[in-house]
Amino acid sequence: MSNSEQLHALSAAEVGRRTAAGDLLVEDYARAILAHIDTTEPSLRAWVVYDPAQVLASARALDALPPHKRGPLHGVADIFLTQEYPTAYGSHWAGHRAQAGVDATAVAVLRGAGALIVGKTTTTQFAASTHGPATVNAVDASRTPGGSSSGSAAAVAAYQVPLALGTQTGGSIIRPASFNGVWGFKPTWNAISRDGVKICAAWNSLTCDTVGLFARSAEDIALASSVFGLSDPAPAPDASTLRLAFVKTGAWGNASEATVAAFTRARAALLAAGARVEDVELESFGDNNTQWHDTERYRAVIHPEGARAFLPDYETYPVSSRATERAKRLESDVVEQIEDGLRRTNDEHLAALDTYARLRPRLDKILEGYDAIITPSTTGVAPPLNDTRHTGNSVFCTMWTVLHVPVVNVPCITEDRLPVGVSVVGRRYGDAQLLQVAAAVGQVIAKAA
Amino acid sequence: MSNSEQLHALSAAEVGRRTAAGDLLVEDYARAILAHIDTTEPSLRAWVVYDPAQVLASARALDALPPHKRGPLHGVADIFLTQEYPTAYGSHWAGHRAQAGVDATAVAVLRGAGALIVGKTTTTQFAASTHGPATVNAVDASRTPGGSSSGSAAAVAAYQVPLALGTQTGGSIIRPASFNGVWGFKPTWNAISRDGVKICAAWNSLTCDTVGLFARSAEDIALASSVFGLSDPAPAPDASTLRLAFVKTGAWGNASEATVAAFTRARAALLAAGARVEDVELESFGDNNTQWHDTERYRAVIHPEGARAFLPDYETYPVSSRATERAKRLESDVVEQIEDGLRRTNDEHLAALDTYARLRPRLDKILEGYDAIITPSTTGVAPPLNDTRHTGNSVFCTMWTVLHVPVVNVPCITEDRLPVGVSVVGRRYGDAQLLQVAAAVGQVIAKAA
Repeated sequence: MSNSEQLHALSAAEVGRRTAAGDLLVEDYARAILAHIDTTEPSLRAWVVYDPAQVLASARALDALPPHKRGPLHGVADIFLTQEYPTAYGSHWAGHRAQAGVDATAVAVLRGAGALIVGKTTTTQFAASTHGPATVNAVDASRTPGGSSSGSAAAVAAYQVPLALGTQTGGSIIRPASFNGVWGFKPTWNAISRDGVKICAAWNSLTCDTVGLFARSAEDIALASSVFGLSDPAPAPDASTLRLAFVKTGAWGNASEATVAAFTRARAALLAAGARVEDVELESFGDNNTQWHDTERYRAVIHPEGARAFLPDYETYPVSSRATERAKRLESDVVEQIEDGLRRTNDEHLAALDTYARLRPRLDKILEGYDAIITPSTTGVAPPLNDTRHTGNSVFCTMWTVLHVPVVNVPCITEDRLPVGVSVVGRRYGDAQLLQVAAAVGQVIAKAA
Repeated sequence: MSNSEQLHALSAAEVGRRTAAGDLLVEDYARAILAHIDTTEPSLRAWVVYDPAQVLASARALDALPPHKRGPLHGVADIFLTQEYPTAYGSHWAGHRAQAGVDATAVAVLRGAGALIVGKTTTTQFAASTHGPATVNAVDASRTPGGSSSGSAAAVAAYQVPLALGTQTGGSIIRPASFNGVWGFKPTWNAISRDGVKICAAWNSLTCDTVGLFARSAEDIALASSVFGLSDPAPAPDASTLRLAFVKTGAWGNASEATVAAFTRARAALLAAGARVEDVELESFGDNNTQWHDTERYRAVIHPEGARAFLPDYETYPVSSRATERAKRLESDVVEQIEDGLRRTNDEHLAALDTYARLRPRLDKILEGYDAIITPSTTGVAPPLNDTRHTGNSVFCTMWTVLHVPVVNVPCITEDRLPVGVSVVGRRYGDAQLLQVAAAVGQVIAKAA
């Protein structure tokens, strides 16, 4: 690894160890990262904004810090996502790309821990699913990277950076992690502050938007999570001690052969490793008949919330007519979601909010009997790119997002050598324990592959 | 009213009517507003940022709009609030003051409806109660204006502008409205998007932060609310048809003589006007023993949320030690609230979140039996300014904020001619109906005064 050409592939943990020990200058590491981005970016197209001169200046500033001022992520390359839209997009949004001096809270935390912020990667428009960005899948360039945090997942998978932030309102971290074969972590809702994020890169549902992370290993996910207070240094449990609930959910009918195979092989491998495995139907718990998976109820939460957040984009009195604004600024399926939100009654919205509020402590209670739930991450492998650049289905993710529980995508590989993950789900604020369980699950799955 | 010296005192509705009819140029109105601010600002100190040249340029741009592009708030002067802190405050926050091109969503909606945004007014630091800004009470300069939306309430009360935005996490709209004798409206949680607001001017509790409005009349509150879809043009009901629940809450022991008198006189006036008045204890409803008013439970929601949002301010690894950061950037009571949040367990936080989630539909159900709840807005009139510029007690407001129900402060005047309001509370998303009920209540109270 003395060849600087390979420095870009180091894990975040390894970069942190070497820079702390004085074995690696952040500037040398930054040059390796930038060279690798130069090589891979023309085909991957993961980036919206990055400025090599600024990255090198930041790297030199980090190198100049005395040892006692160095943080746990000293020099580790990291990226944040932003909205891919033209700067003439509209008066309300036009300024955001220029906010060079303003970090989202999550970025400020990473920067404070010493991370080298390299730039911003692509997302779909406000999580609009059918109009993906130009980014392609890092494993197979003929396929979608998934959305909405497309660029973050692809950049990590392509070894452009070891860590990336993302946001999830439905499945926007877990889905691209599954499609690109990397680890994705959607923490407990609001465990990482969303301040400054939603403006650029999320659907703007206060109830669902969650900031999370991508990395190539469980260790790096845990390291990055530690600066947000979401992990602890205890070792991963032995897989033979785990009690795992395999949950197909009401979305199971959408699972492709690849998803069924990944789920089944994970189950077999964990059984073989001595874990206690139970096939669980959530509906069998307790005394109510509420369906846990209900896409309409999920939409009754997020669409009215999005409609209010996009009010100035959708409806701007003096500037022009509503129809003109639509065509000019918002993707057609974003408009559809806004209009669906405007159509729903307040009573329907409140009933959905209150139902999820009631289900959250119930799910936590169910999870007291298990170390984690295992469930599919996506309906299958990444779909091929097509005219609309469809970024894939989030039907296996939305339920956990709106229930606020933490989810880790553990990468799996199909027989066709394409990635498709399984999700490991814990109880709210059980993030630290979940990361350890997911690490153990990941070891078993990797060994069985 | 032909004398331009008096134009500043017009209601928002009147400005909208005259500019729409072509009877008033926005530029002339803007000059009157600016002249009145020049006169009153040296003592009131409500403003952080305002640029007369920019205001006049905006006014001329509005005058140039053809009639079909004019919105319902055409030319109405409006303000937004921002954090009053030095620009050297810290790298994370330093850029925010400079974000001239970026509107909060709520500001963008007002601007889209034709509002003339005059500038930004003061708030306390992140709603820190014991370190108020320099602003004084508009009615009595020896008293606090209340916080945290201090400047907005004072500027409206002093006729500097007819409309202002504010944010409330505890009592930061209702309290300064009560203290300055103006109408304050805290809508249903998330009914007005908080995007772009929290960064500068709120405690950053996703569960409680709410964007709302100040005005000098029920009519102007309803007009401004209409552009957010929160009011309808139906006339106010006759007071004799109202069913009102007078609720003292568990905070009643904090009520001063002035508050008791305002509450009692409102009750007597509404009775005399023919309203059906009931004295209600919320605890008497239903089968659980949960206290509705519980300051500790409220803190168990907002302090951990704030602690996560302020993580980069409180704990910044490489820059300096934690103790130094504290002293340099955060007010001492903000630090106390962050540290209280860090001390509380996740289980305590979740129990508080889930309890309020359970109480919300219960309160809506109780409100099916009434047109509104009437309850005190503040513990008394505005306290005198003192060394710490204490902005007053929010104990009567926090419960309604965390329960997400809409609240209107209806101004009342004590025998000493000092303002102290009563709160009119409705069910979630019953905002439009509540505004009408509050207008009727306000008419009765004003007539009885």
